[in-house]
Amino acid sequence: MSATTGTARLRHFITAMTRLVGEAESDEARILAEGKPLLAELVATDDWLPEAFAQPHPVHYRQYLLHCDPLERFSVVSFVWGPGQRTPIHDHTVWGLIGVLRGAEEAEMFAPDRVPHAEGHERLDTGMVAAVSPRIGDIHRVRNAFEDHVSISIHVYGANIGAVSRHVFDTTTGAPKGFVSGYANDTLPNPWRD
Amino acid sequence: MSATTGTARLRHFITAMTRLVGEAESDEARILAEGKPLLAELVATDDWLPEAFAQPHPVHYRQYLLHCDPLERFSVVSFVWGPGQRTPIHDHTVWGLIGVLRGAEEAEMFAPDRVPHAEGHERLDTGMVAAVSPRIGDIHRVRNAFEDHVSISIHVYGANIGAVSRHVFDTTTGAPKGFVSGYANDTLPNPWRD
Ligand SMILES: [Fe+3]
Ligand SMILES: [Fe+3]
Ligand SMILES: [Mg+2]
Repeated sequence: MSATTGTARLRHFITAMTRLVGEAESDEARILAEGKPLLAELVATDDWLPEAFAQPHPVHYRQYLLHCDPLERFSVVSFVWGPGQRTPIHDHTVWGLIGVLRGAEEAEMFAPDRVPHAEGHERLDTGMVAAVSPRIGDIHRVRNAFEDHVSISIHVYGANIGAVSRHVFDTTTGAPKGFVSGYANDTLPNPWRD
Repeated sequence: MSATTGTARLRHFITAMTRLVGEAESDEARILAEGKPLLAELVATDDWLPEAFAQPHPVHYRQYLLHCDPLERFSVVSFVWGPGQRTPIHDHTVWGLIGVLRGAEEAEMFAPDRVPHAEGHERLDTGMVAAVSPRIGDIHRVRNAFEDHVSISIHVYGANIGAVSRHVFDTTTGAPKGFVSGYANDTLPNPWRD
């Protein structure tokens, strides 16, 4: 067992993911298979996310960049949901792993040619990890499972996700619209400090 | 010519250094030779360092981490000198590149067996880049060349420098003492934002 505490958890996750993407290269199935237990370990203990990256916005969900691989092969973000907040229907265009650090979230899944009619539904409780990608299902709508408190999930994507050109889909017609999410933060955590 | 502005300069430097250390591996001479013009380009324009990482301390020089390679093969720091501030005599134990972004600094160089008697002296003005390493000379004492304003240099080292066990040397006797510098900051710039 490791005696890892605090921000060292994020540092160890970054190091392990960096080694994984370096070895796996474009083998997405391997990245998802081996990345899943790494993310599960990261979200198993809620003691490492600095407060600045856990702040909800009063109106919208927030996406804080925690780390971007310097070759932009992957990025790690904290998704902070205020009470009852939700995303639009959206895609990612790259692989993604979603781990719930605090609270719970509910997701509806869509097939590309069936938006806005949901194909399925799943609930992710604290500590659970799910995956998305164009290969395995890339379109969803996600919301905080709670109407009365904040939920936080940690997402890992196969690109600098804040800069990726992707899509949101109209809730009524399913019509796609271009979308670049950006990030809420102009500073990152410093996990190299101790 | 590139139209790079603002924090994109730091992003491009990080990307280029990451590629360089990945290709050069342990070839220090290559890293210094090819890293030098990259750092010279970074410090050629003083428009990209966020204010939070340019703040002097009233008493001591300050070292802010700007980026650490996720495999800890190199790190990038801003060294902020208040008026008249100086380092002790110290070593690094790894390669380093020093580029002056703002103001100027003066360095005295020491041979390992001759501390505290300086072997040489150099002045680095804005835009200039110098190198250190155990191979080419690793012990120096550096100070702000100005008694009346702040100077800032950008340093790149062949490790997570804040965590490296190295040495300071007594100014009178030359006796070494163990030293780990750490970093002043618990957040980093976010150069992946746009
Ligand atoms: Fe999503
Ligand atoms: Fe030095
Ligand atoms: Mg920061």
